[in-house]
Amino acid sequence: MSNIYDQGMPRNAANHVAISPLTFIERAASVYPDLPAVVHGQTRRDWATTWQRCRRLASALERRGLGKGDTVSVMLPNVPAMFEAHFGVPLVGCVLNTLNIRLDASAIAYMLEHAETRAILVDPEFVEVVREAIKGLDKPPLIIDVLDPEFEGQAERLGEIEYEDLLAEGDADYPYRLPEDEWDAISLNYTSGTTGKPKGVVYHHRGAYLNAVSNILEWAMPHHPVYLWTLPMFHCNGWCFPWTIAANAGVNVCLRKVDPKKIMELIADEKVTHFSGAPIVLNGLVNLDESQRRAIDHPVKATTAGAAPPAAVIAGVESLGIDVTHVYGLTEVYGPVTVCAWREAWDELPLEERARIKARQGVRGHMLEALCVADPVTLEPLPKDGESIGEIMMRGNNVMKGYLKNEAATREALDGGWYHTGDLAVWHADGYIEIKDRSKDIIISGGENISTIELEDALYAHPAVEEAAVVAQPDEKWGESPCAFVKLKATSGEVTEEDIIEHCRGKLARFKVPKRVVFTELPKTSTGKIQKFVLRQQAKES
Amino acid sequence: MSNIYDQGMPRNAANHVAISPLTFIERAASVYPDLPAVVHGQTRRDWATTWQRCRRLASALERRGLGKGDTVSVMLPNVPAMFEAHFGVPLVGCVLNTLNIRLDASAIAYMLEHAETRAILVDPEFVEVVREAIKGLDKPPLIIDVLDPEFEGQAERLGEIEYEDLLAEGDADYPYRLPEDEWDAISLNYTSGTTGKPKGVVYHHRGAYLNAVSNILEWAMPHHPVYLWTLPMFHCNGWCFPWTIAANAGVNVCLRKVDPKKIMELIADEKVTHFSGAPIVLNGLVNLDESQRRAIDHPVKATTAGAAPPAAVIAGVESLGIDVTHVYGLTEVYGPVTVCAWREAWDELPLEERARIKARQGVRGHMLEALCVADPVTLEPLPKDGESIGEIMMRGNNVMKGYLKNEAATREALDGGWYHTGDLAVWHADGYIEIKDRSKDIIISGGENISTIELEDALYAHPAVEEAAVVAQPDEKWGESPCAFVKLKATSGEVTEEDIIEHCRGKLARFKVPKRVVFTELPKTSTGKIQKFVLRQQAKES
Repeated sequence: MSNIYDQGMPRNAANHVAISPLTFIERAASVYPDLPAVVHGQTRRDWATTWQRCRRLASALERRGLGKGDTVSVMLPNVPAMFEAHFGVPLVGCVLNTLNIRLDASAIAYMLEHAETRAILVDPEFVEVVREAIKGLDKPPLIIDVLDPEFEGQAERLGEIEYEDLLAEGDADYPYRLPEDEWDAISLNYTSGTTGKPKGVVYHHRGAYLNAVSNILEWAMPHHPVYLWTLPMFHCNGWCFPWTIAANAGVNVCLRKVDPKKIMELIADEKVTHFSGAPIVLNGLVNLDESQRRAIDHPVKATTAGAAPPAAVIAGVESLGIDVTHVYGLTEVYGPVTVCAWREAWDELPLEERARIKARQGVRGHMLEALCVADPVTLEPLPKDGESIGEIMMRGNNVMKGYLKNEAATREALDGGWYHTGDLAVWHADGYIEIKDRSKDIIISGGENISTIELEDALYAHPAVEEAAVVAQPDEKWGESPCAFVKLKATSGEVTEEDIIEHCRGKLARFKVPKRVVFTELPKTSTGKIQKFVLRQQAKES
Repeated sequence: MSNIYDQGMPRNAANHVAISPLTFIERAASVYPDLPAVVHGQTRRDWATTWQRCRRLASALERRGLGKGDTVSVMLPNVPAMFEAHFGVPLVGCVLNTLNIRLDASAIAYMLEHAETRAILVDPEFVEVVREAIKGLDKPPLIIDVLDPEFEGQAERLGEIEYEDLLAEGDADYPYRLPEDEWDAISLNYTSGTTGKPKGVVYHHRGAYLNAVSNILEWAMPHHPVYLWTLPMFHCNGWCFPWTIAANAGVNVCLRKVDPKKIMELIADEKVTHFSGAPIVLNGLVNLDESQRRAIDHPVKATTAGAAPPAAVIAGVESLGIDVTHVYGLTEVYGPVTVCAWREAWDELPLEERARIKARQGVRGHMLEALCVADPVTLEPLPKDGESIGEIMMRGNNVMKGYLKNEAATREALDGGWYHTGDLAVWHADGYIEIKDRSKDIIISGGENISTIELEDALYAHPAVEEAAVVAQPDEKWGESPCAFVKLKATSGEVTEEDIIEHCRGKLARFKVPKRVVFTELPKTSTGKIQKFVLRQQAKES
C-alpha cells in the first residue's frame, strides 16, 4: 500500500549513487593527493600518482577492447600492480580475477578457461606456469608482463607488452565513473577446491564497499594506517583491504613473499601499524631467533584468520608487543566477517585465559546482517550452551553474489536464506561462536564428536611443538580415532610419541587423546593452511 | 549487453539485505547486551534493556494501529525516549518526525497537519505549545506524555497515556525486521523556514545507515565512545548520531538543555569522549568562569557545525583540552557531510593559523560521493583559486529522498544531478572549500561581494566581543553596506562603536569595514544560530 512517503521522491542522480570501492580511491586522491599510498622496495608513490596509474590501466584496457563483464586475471604477488589492478580493472567495468600464485598450470588453465579471461597480468616468477597454462586455451588472453624490480630471479618475458608500457598507452585523465548497478561484479576468486573443481566466487561492488568499511569499524582503524601486505591480495582480494586502505588513505607496504625476518624489519623501519595473516604468519614471528627480532616501539595490530590460532601462538605474538584480533570468514563472504570482539573485562585475565578466549571466532561484524549456529538440515538455531555443535550460517550484503556459471552450487550454498559455511561450531552463552571443525574434518569416534582443533590446541601447548595437525584415521574398534602430525621445533631435544601422548592425557578426556603421533613436515596450501586432506590420506594408508 | 557475471546470481535473502540503522542496535544488543547505552540523571540502561524498550515501543504502536508510512512526531529534548524513538518508530515502519522544541504552536500545528501525524510524544515542558497546536487539527494524533524525572517544572499531563505505560502494552520480543526497501523513509525533519512554509526533508534507511557510519569514519571513532548529547536530536536526527552510537555500542549521555556548566561537569564526571554542537555551544564552554571550569584529564573530541566557527572560539576550546573537528552540512544531507580533514603538517602551525585553517568547511566525507563549488546556473565547477565564489553542490546517498509533498521544491533542489545548498563558497587550491556566505546573507557593496563571515571573524578577534553578526543595510551610495551587531562580554570595560570600527580597519579591506556597529543581545534560533533575518530587518528599519 502506498503512503505519502512513497510519492514524488524517486531515486535520481543527486541522491542515489552506486556504492563501490572506487569512490574510496577517488576520495583519497582528491583529498590526500600528496600522502604516501604505496611502498615497495625503493618505490614510493602518493595517492595522486597511484590513482593516475589506475586510470591509465583502465584506459589502456578499454583501448584494447576490454569492457564491462570481461575478466582480467592476475598472477601476481603483493606488488604495486596488484594493488592498482583492484581499482583500474573495475574502473573500466572489468572483473578482477586474482589467481593463487602457488597453483600449478592445470589449475590455472582451468580457471582462465572458466573465467573466459581476456587479459592477464603476470609476474616473472610465474612465467613458466602461465606459459604452460595458456597452451591449451582456444582464445589465449592478452598477456601483460609485470617486471617487478624487486624480483630477484631472471626476469623472463612472456607477453606482448610490459605493464609500464601498457600504462603509457592509457590516459591518466580517464573518466572516473561508478558502476551502473552496485550489484555488478567486481571480482572473481576461485576457492581452493580440495575436492572437485574449484568454484568461482563472484563479489559485487556493494559487498566490496561494505566489507571494506567493515574492516575499519571492526579494527577501529585510525586515519592513514600503514598496512603491511603479509596477506596475499589473491586471497579474497586481501580480505578487501586494498579498498579499506584506500578508504582510510593509508600506506600499502608491499611484500613479495612472507618472510618473518623481512616482516619484522618492515614493521620496525616503515612503522607498520596493521597487518593480517594466517596463524602461520604470526607463528613465524614468534619463532624468530632472538638476533632477528627488532624492538617495536609503536602500536602494531594484527588480525589473524584462516584457522583458529592456537593459544600458544596468540600468547607468543602478544609478548612481541603486537595486539592480535581474531577474525573469521571464508572466500564466499569477502574474507573475515566475524570478529572476536574484545571486552575490557577480559584484560585482567591471565595471558593463557585471554588467548583461549581470543581463539573463538566471535560475533558478527557490523556489515554481516546475521550469524547463527544451526542445525544444517532444519536451519533451527542451536542452544547457546557451548556444547551443541551445528553449522555456522551467515546472511548479509557481504555474502557472495554466487558461483560463476554454477547455478546449482549457488542455490545449494545460499539455500533457505542463509549461506551455509560448512564449518561446525558451538555457540557460547555470551553469543560468541567457536569453531570445532570443518564438516569434513571432525572425528567421530565411538559416536562421540572429537574436535581436531581442541586436540591441536593441546599439542601446541607442548613446548617442543612448532606445528601440529590432527585428522581421523580408520579405527576397527571406534570407527575413527585421532592421528596427530607434529613438526618439532629445531631447538627441541629428543621427544617421543609417548611424550606427546602423555602430555595430551594431562589436557584431554581419554577418548580424545591421539592414538598415534607422526613427526613430519606439514603440507600446506598457498595461504599457509595445513592440507588436512593430504594428512588424512597418509593416516589412512599407513 | 549481458555478460557471464549477470547470469544465475540474483539477489536473494542470503546475500542481499536492506541497509538500515536498525541493524546497529540489534547488533549492539546481541554483542554487548550488558554495556551501558543510555545515561540520564540517575537512570542508567544497558543495550539489551534499551533494545527491549525500542521493541516494546514498536509493538505498542502497532497494536494501536500504526504501521508503514505513518508519521510519529516527537516534541522532546534529548531524553532517553527521544533516543529510543529513533529505533522503535522505524522498527514498525513508521517515520520519525522530530519537532524543533523551540517552535511556537502555529509552526507545530502546520507540521503536524502536513506530516499527517498519527501519534506524538510530548515532554511536559512543551505541553502548552502542543495543546495549542492540536486545537485546529481535523484528526488529532494519539498523544503520549513522556514524564521525564529530570524535568524540574510541574509535570502536567496532556495525553491519554504515559510513555512507560505505552511501553508496558508492547512486546519486548517484538520481531526485529529490516525495511522491505532501503529507500523507505525513516525520518522527517522540517527546515527552519526563515522565509515561506517549512519544508519537510525526508531521510531513508540507506542514507541514515551510510551517514551514521560516515560519522565513525570521519572521526576515526573508537569502539564504545561516551557521547554527550549537546546537539539536539531534533536537528537532522542529531546528525544521525543516535544511529552512530548504536553502531559503535557507545554511551548516550542525555541532556535536557545546553548549559555550559552542566556540560563541563558531565564531561569530567561521565568521562565524555565526544560531543557535537554549534559554535555557540563551544563558545559557552570558553566563556565559563574560572571557578566553573573542571580539569579534563582524558581525550575529548568535539565536532562543530551550523556556522563557521570563529577562529577565536576554536582556539579557546582547544586551550581547554578539547580537540575540535569542523564539519559542515545541512538538513537536506542528514547533517554534516564535509569535514575539515586535518593534515599532520598543520600541527606545527601557530594556534591562530591552525584555527584559521580549521574554520574551513573542508572536503567531502567518505559517504558523500561528490562535492563542488560551481556556477549556480551552468553548474560548471569554479577554479580552485580561493577567490571565485560559487554555490556548494553535493551528490551522494546522504542527499535527502526529497521534500514531503513538494515535488516542485524537490526537483528544484536536486536539479541537474546535484543538491544545491544555497551556500556560497570558494574552493582553495588544496581542494578544501570555505563558505563565504549563505546566498541570501552575502553583502553586495558597490558591486563587490562582502563575506559577512569574514567580517564576523574579524569582530570575534576583538577581546571584548562575545558574539557578533553582520548583515547588509541599505546604502544610498553603495547599494548595500555592512552593519555589525555585537554582544560584549560582561567583563569588558567601555567599548565604543568607533573602537570596533578601528579594530576592523586593522584587519579588513576598507570597503569591508562595517559602516555601523550596534551593541545588543543577538536573536537566535532554537539550534543556536543567530537569526540574521531579524537583524536584517532591524538594520533596514533603523
